Amino acid sequence: MADPKTESLIERMLAGDRLALARLITQVENRTDAVPAIMRAVYPRAHGAYVAGVTGPPGAGKSTVVDRLTALLRAEDQTVGVVAVDPSSPFTGGAVLGDRIRMQAHALDAGVFIRSMATRGSLGGLARATGDVIKLLAAAGYAWVLIETVGVGQTELDIMKLADTTVVVLVPESGDAIQTMKAGLMEAADVFLVNKADRPGAPALMAELKFAAHLHYTSAASPKDIDWEIPVLSAEAQNNVGVKELLAEIRRHRATLEAAGALAARRRARRGEELKSLLLDEFRAALETRLASGELAQACQEVMDGHLDPYSAAREALALLGLRARPGAQP
Amino acid sequence: MADPKTESLIERMLAGDRLALARLITQVENRTDAVPAIMRAVYPRAHGAYVAGVTGPPGAGKSTVVDRLTALLRAEDQTVGVVAVDPSSPFTGGAVLGDRIRMQAHALDAGVFIRSMATRGSLGGLARATGDVIKLLAAAGYAWVLIETVGVGQTELDIMKLADTTVVVLVPESGDAIQTMKAGLMEAADVFLVNKADRPGAPALMAELKFAAHLHYTSAASPKDIDWEIPVLSAEAQNNVGVKELLAEIRRHRATLEAAGALAARRRARRGEELKSLLLDEFRAALETRLASGELAQACQEVMDGHLDPYSAAREALALLGLRARPGAQP
Repeated sequence: MADPKTESLIERMLAGDRLALARLITQVENRTDAVPAIMRAVYPRAHGAYVAGVTGPPGAGKSTVVDRLTALLRAEDQTVGVVAVDPSSPFTGGAVLGDRIRMQAHALDAGVFIRSMATRGSLGGLARATGDVIKLLAAAGYAWVLIETVGVGQTELDIMKLADTTVVVLVPESGDAIQTMKAGLMEAADVFLVNKADRPGAPALMAELKFAAHLHYTSAASPKDIDWEIPVLSAEAQNNVGVKELLAEIRRHRATLEAAGALAARRRARRGEELKSLLLDEFRAALETRLASGELAQACQEVMDGHLDPYSAAREALALLGLRARPGAQP
Repeated sequence: MADPKTESLIERMLAGDRLALARLITQVENRTDAVPAIMRAVYPRAHGAYVAGVTGPPGAGKSTVVDRLTALLRAEDQTVGVVAVDPSSPFTGGAVLGDRIRMQAHALDAGVFIRSMATRGSLGGLARATGDVIKLLAAAGYAWVLIETVGVGQTELDIMKLADTTVVVLVPESGDAIQTMKAGLMEAADVFLVNKADRPGAPALMAELKFAAHLHYTSAASPKDIDWEIPVLSAEAQNNVGVKELLAEIRRHRATLEAAGALAARRRARRGEELKSLLLDEFRAALETRLASGELAQACQEVMDGHLDPYSAAREALALLGLRARPGAQP
C-alpha cells in the first residue's frame, strides 16, 4: 500500500510515537500523494475519539476555553488531541497560531497533542484535511479531539460538522454582530458559552440566547433525532470559572446522542458526506484537465470567447462525459 | 427553446418591460427548469453592463453608498440595476433587505431597478444566481449593475468575483476585526472606502489601509495584468461627502482595466470559471442519484457502515464512472 517509509511512520504512530504522528499530520495537511494510503491504513482504528468543536468570533476566548477543557480532561487522565484550524479568510481573525502559545502549559504532557492548521490557500481542502487529522489522532489513541476554529463562514461550519458536539463561544461584545445571525448559530451550536461573563452585557446576551434557543427548540428547524434544547452557559475561562459545567454539558449532549442512537447515525451520515466530497474533488481535478486540453477544451474556448452560453456548453460537456443523469434533464 | 410563456416574458423584458424582468429574475433566483433556456436566449445581449461590487462588514454603510452612487449615475442619465445579496450566513449580518427601504428614493425612477436576493439555504447557488441576474439586467439594457453584499465569507468573495470593480467599505469601528484579515481584503478590493469618516479612528484606519495597500502593491500578490495601487478614500455617504470621488475612482479603475486589455481578459476567465462551476453542480446532482440508488450505492453503504475507507471507495467509484484522469493517479 504505502511506500516503506510511510508504512514505518504509520506503524510507529500506532505504537504511540508522537514524532511519527506529527509527520503523518504534515503529509495530510500538505495533501501529499501518500494520503490515501495513510488513511486506508489507519481507517480501521480511526473511530474511537469523541470530537468536540469550539467555535465563535475572534476575541471570544476560544483558545482559553480549549486550554481549560484540556486541563480538566487531563486531570481525569483522559488523552486529548487539539486541532486549531485557522481558515484565514478575509473579514475574520487569524490569530489562532499565536494563541497556541497559551497552550504551552500542556507542551510537556505526553497525554496532549496540539496541532495548528492553516489554509495555505485552499479553503476547500481544509475541512477534508481536518477530518483526516481527527482520524489520525483517533488512531493514535487520543480519547478526545478538540477542534478550535474562528467561526465566521462556510468553511468553519464545514469544519464544525466534523464535531460530535459543537460549542459556540460568544462574548458580550459580539452582541451586535450576532443580532442577525441567530438562525445560522442555532444550526451550528449544541452548547452556547457566554465567556467573559463578568463584563457588562453578559446577562442580556444570555437572556437573548436562551430565548432564541428556546424558540429554535420549538421550531421545525430543531433536530429530530434527539430531544435537545441548546443550553446557554456562562464562563470566565481565564479564571477557570464555568469550564467544569461546560464539560458536563458536552458529556450530557454525548449521552443524549448515544441514548437515542443518534451518535452512530450522525457519524454514518458524515462518512457518506465525506465520500461525496472526495468524489467531487476528484471530478474537479479531472475537469480542469479536460477543460484545458482534453475533449472539453473547444466548448470552453467558445464560452470564454462569449460565443456560447455556459448552460448550452455544460449540456454538451456532460453528454461527452457520459454524465447526463436523465435524458432531457436541464443542466 | 423556452416554453411560450417564458419566451414571451423574455421578449417583453428585452423590450424594456420591468415586470417581465422581475419575473425572470424570480425564475433565476428560484433556479427553475426554465433558467438554462432563459440564459441561452438573453446571452448574446448580456455583456454590456459595467459591474461594480460594494462589500464590507455589517454596519459599514454599504446600502447608503450604493444609494448615493445610484443618485450620481442617474444625474448623468445612466441606467442602474442594483442587486443586494444577503448570504444570511451565521456570524454575519443579514439586514440587507431592511436597508432596501432607504433606496425608496429611486423606487419611482424607471432608470433604476432594485432587487434583493437571499440564500434560501443554498449558499452554492447564490453566486450563480447573482451572475445570472447581472446578465438579465445587462440584457434589459442597464448600463451599470451595482452588487451589494455583506462581505464576510467565501460566498461573498465568490459574488465579488462577478464585479469588474470591487469597493470594500470599512468604518473606524471595524478596525479590530480587520487587523488580521488584511491579506484577504487586499485580494478582494480594487478601492477602499473609509465611511463615517467623521468618527474618531478614521484617520488612523486610513493610514493603516494605505500602508497595507502599498505593501500589497509592491508584493508578489498584486495583480500583474494592470498597474494599480488600491486607493483609500474617505466618505460620509450619509451626508453625500466623498461619493463623487468614489465614482471617479471606480471609473479610473475601469479605464485602467480597459487600457491594459485586462477587462476583456478577466471577463473571459470569469466565463470559463462559470462553465466549470456549472459542470461541478451537474456532477454533484448526478452523484447524489448514483450514490443513493445507482451503481455507487453499495460502496457508499460500506463507507457509511465504516467497513471501507472513503479514499478506496472513491477510487472504485471513479473507475465505475469512467473518470480516472490518469491510471494509477491517487484519488
